[in-house]
Amino acid sequence: MYLSKLFIPLLKETPSEAKIKSHQLMLRTGMIKQSSTGIYSWLPLGFKIMKKIEKIVREEQNHIGAQELLMPTIQSANIWKESGRYDDYGEEMLRIKDRQGREMLYGPTNEELITEIFRASVKSYKSLPQLLYHIQWKFRDELRPRFGVMRCKEFFMKDAYSFDVNDVEAGKSYNKMFFAYLKTFKRLGLTAIPMRAETGPIGGDLSHEFVILAETGESKIYSDKRIFDTDISKYTGDDDSINELRKKYGEFYSVTDEKFNKEDFEKKVKKENQLVTKGIEVGHIFYFGDKYSKPLKCAVDLQDGKKVYVKMGSYGIGVSRLVAAIIEAKFINNVMKWPNSVTPYEVAIIPSLQKNDKSNYTKAEKAYNFLKKNNIDVIFDDTDEHLSAKFKKFDLIGIPYQIILGSKSTHDKFEFKEVNGKTESLTLEEIKNKLTNIKN
Amino acid sequence: MYLSKLFIPLLKETPSEAKIKSHQLMLRTGMIKQSSTGIYSWLPLGFKIMKKIEKIVREEQNHIGAQELLMPTIQSANIWKESGRYDDYGEEMLRIKDRQGREMLYGPTNEELITEIFRASVKSYKSLPQLLYHIQWKFRDELRPRFGVMRCKEFFMKDAYSFDVNDVEAGKSYNKMFFAYLKTFKRLGLTAIPMRAETGPIGGDLSHEFVILAETGESKIYSDKRIFDTDISKYTGDDDSINELRKKYGEFYSVTDEKFNKEDFEKKVKKENQLVTKGIEVGHIFYFGDKYSKPLKCAVDLQDGKKVYVKMGSYGIGVSRLVAAIIEAKFINNVMKWPNSVTPYEVAIIPSLQKNDKSNYTKAEKAYNFLKKNNIDVIFDDTDEHLSAKFKKFDLIGIPYQIILGSKSTHDKFEFKEVNGKTESLTLEEIKNKLTNIKN
Repeated sequence: MYLSKLFIPLLKETPSEAKIKSHQLMLRTGMIKQSSTGIYSWLPLGFKIMKKIEKIVREEQNHIGAQELLMPTIQSANIWKESGRYDDYGEEMLRIKDRQGREMLYGPTNEELITEIFRASVKSYKSLPQLLYHIQWKFRDELRPRFGVMRCKEFFMKDAYSFDVNDVEAGKSYNKMFFAYLKTFKRLGLTAIPMRAETGPIGGDLSHEFVILAETGESKIYSDKRIFDTDISKYTGDDDSINELRKKYGEFYSVTDEKFNKEDFEKKVKKENQLVTKGIEVGHIFYFGDKYSKPLKCAVDLQDGKKVYVKMGSYGIGVSRLVAAIIEAKFINNVMKWPNSVTPYEVAIIPSLQKNDKSNYTKAEKAYNFLKKNNIDVIFDDTDEHLSAKFKKFDLIGIPYQIILGSKSTHDKFEFKEVNGKTESLTLEEIKNKLTNIKN
Repeated sequence: MYLSKLFIPLLKETPSEAKIKSHQLMLRTGMIKQSSTGIYSWLPLGFKIMKKIEKIVREEQNHIGAQELLMPTIQSANIWKESGRYDDYGEEMLRIKDRQGREMLYGPTNEELITEIFRASVKSYKSLPQLLYHIQWKFRDELRPRFGVMRCKEFFMKDAYSFDVNDVEAGKSYNKMFFAYLKTFKRLGLTAIPMRAETGPIGGDLSHEFVILAETGESKIYSDKRIFDTDISKYTGDDDSINELRKKYGEFYSVTDEKFNKEDFEKKVKKENQLVTKGIEVGHIFYFGDKYSKPLKCAVDLQDGKKVYVKMGSYGIGVSRLVAAIIEAKFINNVMKWPNSVTPYEVAIIPSLQKNDKSNYTKAEKAYNFLKKNNIDVIFDDTDEHLSAKFKKFDLIGIPYQIILGSKSTHDKFEFKEVNGKTESLTLEEIKNKLTNIKN
């Protein structure tokens, strides 16, 4: 992509309404544009990153056998009345009347609707276990939306639901998701810590929040810092190995504000291992048994002829929120570096261009065409800005690798730089090989 | 995928509310489930097909240089008041008040919002031409939703918008989209005819509807049947060639009901070429100049310093509706055959399974594993139904190729059948090669 052609409305100044660095960066680099309070359009740069995150989330869900479907955004109020949550949910639920006066709502979550789908089609224990998920826009009418897409009204979320015949089987489904979440966040370049959490409005008795560290996080975190050394790649993902992994995490004290107990913390965590910091919730999983299946009468026949309400869990990842969360984690000292897995472009070509000397332009274009032909997704800054202005711009855009054509550039070698890393002088062939290896 | 594991709630009977064959088939094969009047959940089979259609639509948009972004579903009423359409739009617009009493709406289309995005960021003729699109859920509060996803309330649509400095340039953008649409529909296995159309609520003075033939279509069509022989593969896609193509289409009389004139038809079309039938609209493109840019004050500076309101067009493809449209075109004599480009699975393994003889199961599973390993997306009917019941089921599911393991199956050869086509006796290697060739 030629930068001059890209629809990327860069801002010179940081808008005053943006209080945290992800919101600032997203506005500065034209990733998003607010369309009304707490509601955003995703412009091409931001959209591309979000789609890459979505793809990784999807792949890890498919990997554990979860099946994708898609529930609508607008739901009937009726099933929420059946579950009893219609009145409980409060003003955050966007309530709507259609032209015929029917009570509808914009789904803030989907426990009711998925239960209704499940009860209509599954009748026997033979069809269980089952994992279903969708990735869909949801709406919460926040009173004070803030921090850009971190706490906004319309947001993009993956929510999965598990269906089992008993608690033991349900525990296995829960663990599968637990593991898939850790793998998902790892692929996104994040270290997410699972913390025992309150179940809140979803309900149930078992819940983990997945939290990444960030100074600007909303949750205060108290933990044994050794928890960050847990290496999930040692676990295979079968039932036993995930049990081991959950035990491993259980060994280290790690809680959010709401579960914090000072005495406990001092007793269980040695002084040198105590970590008190802030974090951002990027995922949340719940096990709530028959909390929804019972009022909604979602039961299956067991082998012995008895009926049982299915045991359910729900599992959420905030896909649009993750875009901001990654920025909070990776935008350091005013330099952004997107993880390779989600970067909008794999490499940026940044040439110093003179009006009277086309040689750098020609060389840059040659590099661009060569890399494109080799399936490297490259952005070429073909604007006539000064090189120093281009560097400042790319400090924000955050492409992790740069090919720089300054005055120093010799005939067949290029200055190849990893952001926050070293600079090498390489041929195009060497650059291609390096970038291809990074991708695979 | 093992059929027994797939979340596919098949119905034995055709639900009485389904009046047209696409709606019937989609319910029978568990592609969709109604969640409330005119609002559907997409279950795994239907979702997978819709995603494949979306991917083709996206690729053809990207191919002509259109850039993807994503506007939210919920919009502020304010910009609709600026354009003057808030009152015009009538009851089909789902109007919403948020918790603070602000007037919002669920976007039925996006001319206003994209104009607002554009005016905020583009100031100079240098940034034009520009093509922007998104693929997003939209809502029209139909008084009488019917025909399943063909005329429903919440629907998935690609809408693109072009921005140019003058009518001549805008004509080129229009033509690019015109060509991209023909290519898109062709890849979907459809012959779509572009017909001059009324502009309706979008406005403007140039418009084409893309219509596919189907007995159950909503629009009556009068055309010169030679129009169907137009071969778009002979046109390269540059400005001149598309002009030629548009002229070519212009040679043949082809209109919908609203533009029909009997005398004209009789005069221009020889008796033997007259085709009077029904069709389904799958795409619609509009050129409306400054109809929105003017009231919304979206102008750019020209080279000579003057300002001009940008000239815009909009271009829609109904992605969810296309799922039903393809069924209307390809479900013939009670047998469905999905086009290879969008089929949910590339091949189905359909074995006759006996309780006391595992040999067919073993053989089928071997074929399944072999094909999976070779990146063929295969569905294996591992249920214990009778072979004739399985055939009936797959007549509806519509996978275009079948590997049948009946009683006849010899040791290393398999019965390989193309739906509505011939049956061959092939080795697994031969089947793999055939399916791989079809894909590429």
